[in-house]
Amino acid sequence: MNSTVPEPALEIARSRREHALSELRELLRIPSVSAQPERRADMQRAAEWIAARFRALGFSGVEVIATGGHPVVAGERTEAGAGAPTLLFYGHYDVQPPDPLGEWVSPPFEPQVRGENLHARGASDMKGQLVAFLAALEAMRQAGTPLPVNLKLLVEGEEEVGSASLPPLLRSQRERFACDYCLNSDAGILAPDQPSLTYGLRGLAYFELRVQGPSHDLHSGSFGGAVDNPVQVLFRLLAGMKDERGRVTLPGFYDRVRPLPDDERAELAKLPDDEAWWLEASGAPALFGEEGYSPRERAACRPTLDVNGVSGGFEGEGSKTVLPARAMAKFSMRLVPDQDPEEVRQSVLAYLKREAPPTVTWELIQMAGFKASLTGRDTPGVRAAATALERVWGKRPLFSRTGGSVPVVGQIRELLGVDSVLLGFGLPDDNLHAPNEKLHLPTFHRGIEAYIHFLHLAGPAGPALKGSATPSDNV
Amino acid sequence: MNSTVPEPALEIARSRREHALSELRELLRIPSVSAQPERRADMQRAAEWIAARFRALGFSGVEVIATGGHPVVAGERTEAGAGAPTLLFYGHYDVQPPDPLGEWVSPPFEPQVRGENLHARGASDMKGQLVAFLAALEAMRQAGTPLPVNLKLLVEGEEEVGSASLPPLLRSQRERFACDYCLNSDAGILAPDQPSLTYGLRGLAYFELRVQGPSHDLHSGSFGGAVDNPVQVLFRLLAGMKDERGRVTLPGFYDRVRPLPDDERAELAKLPDDEAWWLEASGAPALFGEEGYSPRERAACRPTLDVNGVSGGFEGEGSKTVLPARAMAKFSMRLVPDQDPEEVRQSVLAYLKREAPPTVTWELIQMAGFKASLTGRDTPGVRAAATALERVWGKRPLFSRTGGSVPVVGQIRELLGVDSVLLGFGLPDDNLHAPNEKLHLPTFHRGIEAYIHFLHLAGPAGPALKGSATPSDNV
Repeated sequence: MNSTVPEPALEIARSRREHALSELRELLRIPSVSAQPERRADMQRAAEWIAARFRALGFSGVEVIATGGHPVVAGERTEAGAGAPTLLFYGHYDVQPPDPLGEWVSPPFEPQVRGENLHARGASDMKGQLVAFLAALEAMRQAGTPLPVNLKLLVEGEEEVGSASLPPLLRSQRERFACDYCLNSDAGILAPDQPSLTYGLRGLAYFELRVQGPSHDLHSGSFGGAVDNPVQVLFRLLAGMKDERGRVTLPGFYDRVRPLPDDERAELAKLPDDEAWWLEASGAPALFGEEGYSPRERAACRPTLDVNGVSGGFEGEGSKTVLPARAMAKFSMRLVPDQDPEEVRQSVLAYLKREAPPTVTWELIQMAGFKASLTGRDTPGVRAAATALERVWGKRPLFSRTGGSVPVVGQIRELLGVDSVLLGFGLPDDNLHAPNEKLHLPTFHRGIEAYIHFLHLAGPAGPALKGSATPSDNV
Repeated sequence: MNSTVPEPALEIARSRREHALSELRELLRIPSVSAQPERRADMQRAAEWIAARFRALGFSGVEVIATGGHPVVAGERTEAGAGAPTLLFYGHYDVQPPDPLGEWVSPPFEPQVRGENLHARGASDMKGQLVAFLAALEAMRQAGTPLPVNLKLLVEGEEEVGSASLPPLLRSQRERFACDYCLNSDAGILAPDQPSLTYGLRGLAYFELRVQGPSHDLHSGSFGGAVDNPVQVLFRLLAGMKDERGRVTLPGFYDRVRPLPDDERAELAKLPDDEAWWLEASGAPALFGEEGYSPRERAACRPTLDVNGVSGGFEGEGSKTVLPARAMAKFSMRLVPDQDPEEVRQSVLAYLKREAPPTVTWELIQMAGFKASLTGRDTPGVRAAATALERVWGKRPLFSRTGGSVPVVGQIRELLGVDSVLLGFGLPDDNLHAPNEKLHLPTFHRGIEAYIHFLHLAGPAGPALKGSATPSDNV
């Protein structure tokens, strides 16, 4: 049986857990924050680190490709030959900014194990997944297990800032990255004891709105009442984009929103995340959102708008009686099929042109824009992933949609013409993008084994091409 | 004639202009920012500097009095005796925070002369006025001119943060500060060639509102739509306090607002600040405010609400897809007679209790609260000040109301039972509380001479007690 073939590699992976953890610590110490220009050298260092590891694993043509932004790591192992499928392994080595720094229990770039978790920025998103995949390949190499698929690499450094350099690269080197499907490891499962596969992601339209009133900060006593306040205008403009029940009020925003079919809603209702889970995971005093939808549906299948940051005027300790010259808000809409980020931008522009008063000037800057994605649940790659998860966890995975965005999934669909299989091992309470990001180590080690199973099953002899283990009987 | 008596002192003041400027530069180099805890030592240094200067001028009992906040400088010269009026000289040695630092042409605490102006934080508000008064006393001392009034000192270090330590001090040492009226030098005139006296100031109710949603920053993709956004809630709450025409919408806010009499409106209409002036001074693309009122009326005689600062979420460069845990806004209402800051606070609390959703928690912190003030225009001190201005400028001053707040004016009325005469020489375009604050040096030097005239005229032989030079024929 196929299921016994990877046993030597699994044994080796189990014996090398400390080594995998040590490798991960080393990568986590590199503060590869793509949003911060002063981290450019660290970004290069992280890319070189990844490239060196793949070279040591027998990949050929490994290259750190310069882009207009941060570099991309490419390379390939093609010994499986023409009879085997070709997979494009996608990952990213960049991480979110660590602020607010004061809320970290341990410094974000000094990994610390507390209990079953390793704490560091990027531990879960997604250096942990990268190192798990490397560990799987290393175990197979040491076991002498041949790689039953051809593997190509695409490891980028701009996932957290919108993946702007990928489209030109994929366009100009389409052949280099040609594949049967993409294995995207920037993903997670529902709970440590509940494997799952994500088949749907939301899109994103991210903006920065800058509002300018007076030419310089004014004394609020001398001018207040006779000169408009750009912070107040910003508040009114943003408050007017979404109502108190979470419905976005921009004109036409819901026009292209694909209704959620009843059967899909019924499936999603079987997911284990009830209201208590959402309250616990968020720490919010009460849940929120559109009437008639469950929390999962609101956060994964319905579009929304969030303010991501705001600044203006005096933010320090104490009081300052200033009428600020300007204010800035970052805000973003999560999109669902078939919303179009460019149409959303046009709607925001039209709204601002209509609503912004003549007492201020304003500027809208688009920081990111890409569509949502939905991957078919009955494709060979998804079948291999489902079986791999079942073999490690001993239970069938649940199928889930999630509200996050992986822009590259849409870009790869558009530019390489293939779907993505999302197979990664982050957990919902990993504090992604937040202070005290962590990685659950038992899940990390299971993830290494799942990647070994997956690579085995994705080959010509696996269920992927035989049509077994169809996930359609899963929820 | 009285007008000739101070000539020797005026001559000496003219010959010592460079020295006065040098003294001012020295005081401006002390970064006495009362709002910043790390400036505590500089606050003490500035207070000691002031105390040393008054000691050198023959003041007795000069003391740097410790308070719960920053120290107060007290002292007196009483050689004029019981037959002369006793004036309490009020000033403050603290300054506003200098941020945003990047917008200063020269560093805020390194005074620089450019053209006719001296640029530094505190140059106009109000170290320039303090040094002008010191220079006037020094010139009179060197001229051998006897001081025709008794002078007491009250120079505080918390004017820019609400003067919280003054009420307990004035309450506990009422006799020490007992006087016939207060000479408040924290004031200005309308233009370099237009002397004026301010008889009305607005009050202030300053708050910080903190809104907390989730217990920690969340990934806006994973949670957006199912968990409320505290920044958005903050925007909605603040946007709901004021309408698009500048009218505060808090319940009962206008209940106690004293109507502006027609004769006063007619007088104020004669002030030279037309709409073009307000546009030029503010640099705003258009003016703003309540219908039916002039800019001067809106900014000086009508109450208003301004957001003074806001922060929340990711404020750095680039984008971060975060659903922030919390947001903060500082906002303040300028009050007019007979509004009560405590009633305003109660109204804000009631509004927040009604409007804030159960998806967040919030906290309202009051940072300052005091009433507006209106000083009688036919009092002896105001008559002396009006004549002093006329003698230096060669034209009668205009009478004005201004929108700023000097909390101590109300406190001194309440706690010492006396009115304040506002005699200072700031200009409307001095960039008070803003980057590139400056002092117009020709006006500074005229101010020194005006203080010499005033001290002369305020004595028993001056117009103050003779009833001449009534300002009622001025506008």
